[in-house]
Amino acid sequence: MKPIKIGLLGLGTVGTGVVRIVEGHSEDLERQTGSSIIVEKVLVQDVSKLRAVPIDPDKMTDQPDDIIRNPEIDVVVEVMGGVEQTKGYILEALEQGKHVVTANKDLMALHGPEILAKAAEKGCDVFYEASVAGGIPIIRTLIEGFSSDRITKIMGIVNGTTNYILSKMSQEGAAYADVLKEAQGLGYAESDPTSDVEGLDAARKMTILSTLGFHSEVALADVKVRGISKVSKEDIQYGKKLGYEVKLLGIAERSDDLISVSVEPTMVKTSHPLASVNGVFNAVYVYGEAVGETMFYGPGAGEMPTATSIVADLVAVVRNMNLGVNGQRGSAPYRVKKLAAAEQISSKYFVLLHVEDKAGVLAQITQIFAKHEVSLESVFQHPNETNPKAEIIIITHDANQARMNDVLAEFDRLDVIQTIKSVYRVEG
Amino acid sequence: MKPIKIGLLGLGTVGTGVVRIVEGHSEDLERQTGSSIIVEKVLVQDVSKLRAVPIDPDKMTDQPDDIIRNPEIDVVVEVMGGVEQTKGYILEALEQGKHVVTANKDLMALHGPEILAKAAEKGCDVFYEASVAGGIPIIRTLIEGFSSDRITKIMGIVNGTTNYILSKMSQEGAAYADVLKEAQGLGYAESDPTSDVEGLDAARKMTILSTLGFHSEVALADVKVRGISKVSKEDIQYGKKLGYEVKLLGIAERSDDLISVSVEPTMVKTSHPLASVNGVFNAVYVYGEAVGETMFYGPGAGEMPTATSIVADLVAVVRNMNLGVNGQRGSAPYRVKKLAAAEQISSKYFVLLHVEDKAGVLAQITQIFAKHEVSLESVFQHPNETNPKAEIIIITHDANQARMNDVLAEFDRLDVIQTIKSVYRVEG
Repeated sequence: MKPIKIGLLGLGTVGTGVVRIVEGHSEDLERQTGSSIIVEKVLVQDVSKLRAVPIDPDKMTDQPDDIIRNPEIDVVVEVMGGVEQTKGYILEALEQGKHVVTANKDLMALHGPEILAKAAEKGCDVFYEASVAGGIPIIRTLIEGFSSDRITKIMGIVNGTTNYILSKMSQEGAAYADVLKEAQGLGYAESDPTSDVEGLDAARKMTILSTLGFHSEVALADVKVRGISKVSKEDIQYGKKLGYEVKLLGIAERSDDLISVSVEPTMVKTSHPLASVNGVFNAVYVYGEAVGETMFYGPGAGEMPTATSIVADLVAVVRNMNLGVNGQRGSAPYRVKKLAAAEQISSKYFVLLHVEDKAGVLAQITQIFAKHEVSLESVFQHPNETNPKAEIIIITHDANQARMNDVLAEFDRLDVIQTIKSVYRVEG
Repeated sequence: MKPIKIGLLGLGTVGTGVVRIVEGHSEDLERQTGSSIIVEKVLVQDVSKLRAVPIDPDKMTDQPDDIIRNPEIDVVVEVMGGVEQTKGYILEALEQGKHVVTANKDLMALHGPEILAKAAEKGCDVFYEASVAGGIPIIRTLIEGFSSDRITKIMGIVNGTTNYILSKMSQEGAAYADVLKEAQGLGYAESDPTSDVEGLDAARKMTILSTLGFHSEVALADVKVRGISKVSKEDIQYGKKLGYEVKLLGIAERSDDLISVSVEPTMVKTSHPLASVNGVFNAVYVYGEAVGETMFYGPGAGEMPTATSIVADLVAVVRNMNLGVNGQRGSAPYRVKKLAAAEQISSKYFVLLHVEDKAGVLAQITQIFAKHEVSLESVFQHPNETNPKAEIIIITHDANQARMNDVLAEFDRLDVIQTIKSVYRVEG
């Protein structure tokens, strides 16, 4: 059979991994697809730069058209990152009838619908397993493994940087700023860590997962985002004492066809499988009406895990090519998106208050909860050693978000409450 | 599009779940496949028996030919269990050009190659996701998600009954016989529990997983099996003290193309993700050279989880029918099977010895390990309160099985060793 020729856009860490697997596992890939797969061209900025894998200099180019308009190339593998320029390349490649495999979550979260529509128009595959949770095959699990079920909840630890930071803070009792600096030193966090620590990266991934899980076109702007930069070591220590770990969770829920998606630091009960996912690992918990609780765990990033997902997508494209069935994945959203309002979203909450240490304060606080019909699971009060004020921790039962916001607004106006120190969603 | 008609062989728990999903999720299934799916005929022993789901009496039959030779039926869903007779039905259905979805691990472990060969000959699909780990889509993960990688290790908690028993023994310090009786009362264990507790059920599932993971035709007879009926509460308590949980693990390894597969109670380090999989849940840990560590967790049995996997397979069959690409999954083994000999398999071991409490015993024991070049990670000795003899626990470094057998044979002949109380493989 005619060899399948791929063009790589980018040869950074992940691109290097793709070359290693395509060349290193060439015999297995051929046995599985019936075709040999060849890296035909590689787009880089500097063709003369020394590379981590040996590549024939004739294959290197700094001209995008050598790939996206090259009639020899069957599949474009995009591992260069970026959004606007990259989108242009991918749309042009599809226009030219090439299939696309991409690891680009930013692009798919922002322009997925447009790219997938172009692919459908041209009968091409666009696969993007590597865009979420690196080596975990979560996208095909949602599309194929759970095609029969109604998924009602997806909770993901989908950002390794923040999970590393929170795990370290929990294990060592360390402060956020110190662990962030250490993570930057180890290369687990960028010098500008905003996208990770403020939850934007996780929000992009949740956009992709919730669109697939709920068959509705969820947009990045639909995701409520809060990062971890305000998580204190005290919060983590209090959580631990009460049996919780703080995790940055992406939470997508569907109830009565109303969708809500958020990314926020969450108190996760120690017994929940997500609570013990530590370090740079990722995990996605999926709840389906029929299947119940499932979880998928693995490396969320890195050269070889991400390349594994990219090359698995490449195998799927090649199998489809040999069967003549590209562009037929059938994962397009078919349900009108309806977003839940605050009063339609409910969860348990953890609230830490610094209050004046005098009689009647707790009664005032619990009265406000009662007035807004938020019932309480547990209340802990104890003096703070470093502060003349007392601390109160409250864990609520399931409460709707709107009522909870009313409670917090009233706390803000209450003299005896010094500070609303922290508020977390509680899961598990 | 013409509706797709299915024939169900069996209407027990799982068959009932299949009817519930096919009828309850009919709109979603049609949106995802482009076809409506109809339960056309159901084979049962007693057509007059009252059923948990309402089914048109005209659809019930006690004649297998009404399904397997019925030209109206496109897909046969086999949920009746059994091996020889069932195999005959499935082969005949394939002969008639029908696709098959089955949950039957016994059948696939024993006759998978023959059935898959017949399917290939007739251009039919045979899918069997539900045969391993119920609701966890582990088979498509191995075939598709990790098509790009070289899997070198699969470890599975793939039997819910034994995991329930071991979890209870660990959590409550209870004895095996008591927990087994309780599990039988709850319907988690059969009245004759042999197949579960002696590891045979897990062995069948590991046959299927290792065949797919290693691309070699592993046979049930290749799996070394040891069950949990000899696991004592003392073993579990000693394990816990040293940071291990006892789990019945299916372990499939490939090293230098040499394969070994076993099912055995194993000491799993508490920090390993498999250690916290409790109760009737299943989990499969997959290690790939490129992807590294991954784990897939979910319900291992039950009406709706198992039916989820069956109907997901049905969706795949229908998608293939509409594309005209049935019988092309491409998961047939292509590697010659080479089994590892005992001296080619290595692992850490946990050994608990009852010895005479006198000077020099430990020296004699450690000398025997040294003589056979088994090095030790740790040694614990303490008097046994209920026994005048002392107890010694040894955890070895990685040791090959042949040498370990030599050590144990020599212990057997050693006067100062009263009993080799227990020997476990150690993982994590």
